[in-house]
Amino acid sequence: NDAFRITVLPGDGIGHEVMAPCIAVLEAAARRIGGFSLRFDEHQAGALAYRDTGVALPKSALDAARRADAILLGAMGWPEVRYPDGTEIGPQLDLRFELGLYAGVRPVRTLPNMPAVLADPRARQLDFVVIRESTEGLFASRGKGVVEEDREARDTMVITRKVCEPLFDFAFALARSRKARGAPGAVTCVDKANVFASLAFFRKIFDERAALNTDIRAEHAYVDATALYMVRRPWEFDVLVTENMFGDILSDLGAGLMGGMGFAPSADIGDENAVFQPCHGSAPDIFGQGKANPTAMILSGAMMLEWLGERHGREEAVRAGGIVREAVDAAYGAGLKPYEIGGGDGTGAVTDAVM
Amino acid sequence: NDAFRITVLPGDGIGHEVMAPCIAVLEAAARRIGGFSLRFDEHQAGALAYRDTGVALPKSALDAARRADAILLGAMGWPEVRYPDGTEIGPQLDLRFELGLYAGVRPVRTLPNMPAVLADPRARQLDFVVIRESTEGLFASRGKGVVEEDREARDTMVITRKVCEPLFDFAFALARSRKARGAPGAVTCVDKANVFASLAFFRKIFDERAALNTDIRAEHAYVDATALYMVRRPWEFDVLVTENMFGDILSDLGAGLMGGMGFAPSADIGDENAVFQPCHGSAPDIFGQGKANPTAMILSGAMMLEWLGERHGREEAVRAGGIVREAVDAAYGAGLKPYEIGGGDGTGAVTDAVM
Ligand SMILES: CC(C)[C@H](C(=O)O)[C@@H](O)C(=O)O
Ligand SMILES: CC(C)[C@H](C(=O)O)[C@@H](O)C(=O)O
Repeated sequence: NDAFRITVLPGDGIGHEVMAPCIAVLEAAARRIGGFSLRFDEHQAGALAYRDTGVALPKSALDAARRADAILLGAMGWPEVRYPDGTEIGPQLDLRFELGLYAGVRPVRTLPNMPAVLADPRARQLDFVVIRESTEGLFASRGKGVVEEDREARDTMVITRKVCEPLFDFAFALARSRKARGAPGAVTCVDKANVFASLAFFRKIFDERAALNTDIRAEHAYVDATALYMVRRPWEFDVLVTENMFGDILSDLGAGLMGGMGFAPSADIGDENAVFQPCHGSAPDIFGQGKANPTAMILSGAMMLEWLGERHGREEAVRAGGIVREAVDAAYGAGLKPYEIGGGDGTGAVTDAVM
Repeated sequence: NDAFRITVLPGDGIGHEVMAPCIAVLEAAARRIGGFSLRFDEHQAGALAYRDTGVALPKSALDAARRADAILLGAMGWPEVRYPDGTEIGPQLDLRFELGLYAGVRPVRTLPNMPAVLADPRARQLDFVVIRESTEGLFASRGKGVVEEDREARDTMVITRKVCEPLFDFAFALARSRKARGAPGAVTCVDKANVFASLAFFRKIFDERAALNTDIRAEHAYVDATALYMVRRPWEFDVLVTENMFGDILSDLGAGLMGGMGFAPSADIGDENAVFQPCHGSAPDIFGQGKANPTAMILSGAMMLEWLGERHGREEAVRAGGIVREAVDAAYGAGLKPYEIGGGDGTGAVTDAVM
């Protein structure tokens, strides 16, 4: 009865295929550690839901998500299912906006035994985090962009103090907890303050919050230079925090450095709610073939357990998240090779190895 | 008397140190091939000009640039020299806007013998081009962003048909001339049409122009996925064309794949004018030490010769550009190692090797 209530939104395509293994692994971890349990409550949402019902994120699903302790999301989107205005369906964006999930946490942590992406051996064990602001920035314009007379189109980037202050505090707190585990203890504000007033404002608020978090080193970098550093010396990063659109780009680049989207977990965290989902999409090209890599989904589940445990002061849940991560590391350490990196391990094989 | 008239803006910091070698190499190439000559006309502009005179790009320099056959730019910007609104000085942005240089051409071509950046051997000889639209997009907001009551700030991205049509035609023409030299003949429109009306509009115009250029393969990719592909399989790219801010990020990432900014040339091309400049900045940290790598500036000069030759039907100039590029390749093939990649070859050594 004091189970954590998890709203599950498998979404479209391989979202379903990776969700089942994730739930199995999380339940096994909860049983192994004991002292807490999970109750899963599944809802349909996504592009196919839109196609079939005209609503991508039904109110019932949103309400359930809002009341839940946490939300697990698979993947959403499907070719040919788009809003009439030409943009696609993105209930995961709706969730971020509706639930105020400003801190998009996208760890870049390399698993053991992965084929090298960068030539430099220091890139074999990356461990940094991109925090993507996830409720405003350029994405504030989603659904609001205008096209005039087939001649000119506009979208507006919005940066607010209300969102930036907790965002940066979140980044400093994360750097602090990472520092306690041996990380350098640095936060880099990634912007383009040399050109845009909104991003100069972003940096200004960052500097204000940095002054309140002096145990953590505060640094600045331009987004263009950061993209270059990510291939030249990513091992120097600790916590990066950036605008929504920039974070979308840099976190995918980070997933590339990890070996692919199937290895990249994420969390979108607000003051009251949080969504945990892999960075990959619904992958129509491999849907239904048993080839989907559930690693990112499982690691997102581990992030969920740790977040739940920390938030509710339940050390068991934190420990359960830890053993899931260790199980994934051990599986890769023992030679697991999903299709995504040219191996032959499908969804089932990856799940079995982690279990 | 029918010399090509080149306006030279060395700018700040190492801008001066790389410009002198570039001019020497271009003059040597013109002498070697014969049949054309270059007349250089230098003007001060940049952050230090702003500090000393209150004007970053003096009208006399802009007028000279407008009348010239082409413009060579070194690098601009200097720490602590900023506009009062907090954004920095960017006369190179003024030039793009004032002269309508919509096509920012940023080749990603790996030189021989460079230390590997990506582990995959196919990345040793990259040869693709990022075309960054350079007069609008998010940068349309430069100097126009607003901050309200220290509470909220906004910048607006603008996409116009007027700019996009010639931009995409430029991209298809470039892919066509590359195809004649063995490239795949493909243009990829890089956008975020799934979220933003302005970028859905961008894609729509791309598709219209693609329908008029059916000898070239037209493809779409999202900007976040493209960042990932750039580290996972960049050898598959031919010509990419994208919005200004996206192009800023992706082209720096491309420079990273080449080994660093000191190897990355660029051209900003409009209907009447063009600026050729290295992608690197003014590098205050190494200024005055003879360590600056003039390679990107020299390769930008080679792009200038080729553009001048093609535009004016002067085959000699195209050939001269070609021999500059070959000389750079030969120098690296013979083992040149600038400081930037951990070698000991300074500005003079690089210049001598290319000469
Ligand atoms: C599907 C898309 C709208 C989404 C985004 O841009 O946020 C995705 O790329 C992501 O990173 O979660
Ligand atoms: C200096 C800066 C304003 C400029 C830009 O963003 O365009 C630079 O990064 C570039 O790529 O030329």
